[in-house]
Amino acid sequence: MDQEQTRPIIYLDHAATSWPKAPGVIEAVVQAMENDSANPGRGSHQMAVRASRILFDTRKQLAKLFRIKNPNDIAFTLNTTMGLNMAIKGLVTPGDHVIATAVEHNSVRRPLEYLKATAGIDVTYLEPDDKGYLDPNLVKNAIRSTTKLVAVNHSSNLLGSVISVGDIGAITKANGVKLLVDAAQSAGTIDIDVAAMGIDMLAFPGHKGLLGPQGTGGLYIAPDLDLEPLMHGGTGSQSESPQQPLVRPDRYEAGTPNTSGLAGLKAGVQYVLHETPQKIHTKEWALTQRMMEGLLSISGVRILGPALGENRSGIVSIIVENVDPSETAFILDQHYGIAVRSGFHCTPLAHGIAGTLETGAIRSSVGCFTTEAEADAFVDAIREIKQHYQ
Amino acid sequence: MDQEQTRPIIYLDHAATSWPKAPGVIEAVVQAMENDSANPGRGSHQMAVRASRILFDTRKQLAKLFRIKNPNDIAFTLNTTMGLNMAIKGLVTPGDHVIATAVEHNSVRRPLEYLKATAGIDVTYLEPDDKGYLDPNLVKNAIRSTTKLVAVNHSSNLLGSVISVGDIGAITKANGVKLLVDAAQSAGTIDIDVAAMGIDMLAFPGHKGLLGPQGTGGLYIAPDLDLEPLMHGGTGSQSESPQQPLVRPDRYEAGTPNTSGLAGLKAGVQYVLHETPQKIHTKEWALTQRMMEGLLSISGVRILGPALGENRSGIVSIIVENVDPSETAFILDQHYGIAVRSGFHCTPLAHGIAGTLETGAIRSSVGCFTTEAEADAFVDAIREIKQHYQ
Repeated sequence: MDQEQTRPIIYLDHAATSWPKAPGVIEAVVQAMENDSANPGRGSHQMAVRASRILFDTRKQLAKLFRIKNPNDIAFTLNTTMGLNMAIKGLVTPGDHVIATAVEHNSVRRPLEYLKATAGIDVTYLEPDDKGYLDPNLVKNAIRSTTKLVAVNHSSNLLGSVISVGDIGAITKANGVKLLVDAAQSAGTIDIDVAAMGIDMLAFPGHKGLLGPQGTGGLYIAPDLDLEPLMHGGTGSQSESPQQPLVRPDRYEAGTPNTSGLAGLKAGVQYVLHETPQKIHTKEWALTQRMMEGLLSISGVRILGPALGENRSGIVSIIVENVDPSETAFILDQHYGIAVRSGFHCTPLAHGIAGTLETGAIRSSVGCFTTEAEADAFVDAIREIKQHYQ
Repeated sequence: MDQEQTRPIIYLDHAATSWPKAPGVIEAVVQAMENDSANPGRGSHQMAVRASRILFDTRKQLAKLFRIKNPNDIAFTLNTTMGLNMAIKGLVTPGDHVIATAVEHNSVRRPLEYLKATAGIDVTYLEPDDKGYLDPNLVKNAIRSTTKLVAVNHSSNLLGSVISVGDIGAITKANGVKLLVDAAQSAGTIDIDVAAMGIDMLAFPGHKGLLGPQGTGGLYIAPDLDLEPLMHGGTGSQSESPQQPLVRPDRYEAGTPNTSGLAGLKAGVQYVLHETPQKIHTKEWALTQRMMEGLLSISGVRILGPALGENRSGIVSIIVENVDPSETAFILDQHYGIAVRSGFHCTPLAHGIAGTLETGAIRSSVGCFTTEAEADAFVDAIREIKQHYQ
């Protein structure tokens, strides 16, 4: 920006969006904008064909990552929220019962509450334990004859806890219920195998763990599942029909897609595939453990979610006794150049579990390019701020 | 793409997406991805503040262009289709009557047909004349006590005809009916004043006449109008509420926006504001007239839509006697390096008007960087192809 000087930054807000992006992502966006960004699927000329190939290639890489057999079962979206809205509103009809959890993001909770208010659906929010773990038996016991959907956050965006999706998938499969997984905090950083985990729908962002540009994301829809599309419109196919075509991915992708953004996403996914989600997870976990050890040595700091040594994502949310979270985030930014997030993180019920409904929390989140020195800088800053308030 | 050699191109597919983009657009995208692409509105750190400012600035430029008083009355979308779905599905309820035209794009027709089939709404499609002009009196006469919405294509994406939106807006205002304008083929290239024209909702693309990246677009919603949002989810505001907040633009923008794409759109809109839509329209009109003169000198070529000398957008669609449109488009691409589009252009009813329902048409469309030489090259190529077939 020309209006203000850019200050050095220690970026610990990867749960909101990753930064920097993977090597090659910006170059791929530029290459697409300069040479290939015609309208894919809307023309047969060379540039339109190249644009179509970008979409095809990106879909193929994502299918490889999530072990999806047919890349056309992935629909591109603006963001995870759009994928979740498409899944929930496209599947659930009046009279249905839906099971979700108290650690869902507002992108799941608000569509469900909307349908509860307007379409007479019923929703059960299961309570994970105080670390954010969900006992799969709770899902089993909550299923009724009218249950159509179970929607779970793969990893809580506040607590960092990771839910046993595979165990839940076995239960939903056995009971003929569909499983929607919100992979906002796991795609790219926790291994996902849609078939092995019994996932019927997977909503994922392109701009977080997949290290691609904002404005990208997608929804995997199992081949045996037909959703009413969220958007009806032009597809470049079956133009003469007044109905949305059944053919995928067109059915779920009306209008012009974000071709250049998806070119960048391809580069991001290729990087993740090369590194592997397992390795990235191991690296991020080591960073969170180091950060947690440091934080636990400061009196009055409480870490939300799983304990030291337990499985978690790259998120470490904390409460510091007698210190206001939003003020702390402000000091971290202004004085230390450390970017974290304070507040409620769009997940009010999870704050109920964590006992932080009145204050909110400070959320630090590492990414695959975060260094130990950056993790340490956060710990040192929190130590100083805490001392200052004593 | 590394798989194939890029051939020189004469790009006449601006109605699908503009190329190249305005000066500074790619640079703005890169700058945002490198330095400013945190998650806007989800954090208070410096990079999140810069991301928020990008959105604010882009909204402000768009508001200036369309003479919108409050920039927050613009919601950003993935594309025009998303804006049109948001407008139609957010406003129309069971029992409503909607008036549209036979030259609507499938992005208007398919949502309407969906609501007709599932929500019991009634739709009247008005017939423009064979040039694509719509008599505003037809709108007046079609209004019933149950009419809630009039949805019109500002400029047909097949015929190039321009509809008198202001005259229709006067009628809808006088009758308490809401007016939705699809500006896919006019935003940036035909002057739009939402207040003067009586427009209640304006859906526009970022990647066509506004010369920005794909993955951008928006919907203007008049301040006195409340729509049920198309997407429910996280907004970074009022996180503790299970309902979508009423505050704009948050109400209509759930999830992470396309920050870097919108940075590019800002540069595109600034270019358009500097050039002015009037000047761009004059330039494009002169090019279409030159192209039409050339085409009319070829026997057996029929030009759809307005006649020579009449108002039209940058679109010139043609039928060439005894020549198949899709084969012609293929030859234009392969032999001449000319990118046009053949087929039905997602607007089947308009082909009914033009008498081209069985064959489709060849659509050539100029943009603000198209040269006379490029227009001439298209004419010369059509002449050669026609001779070849004789």
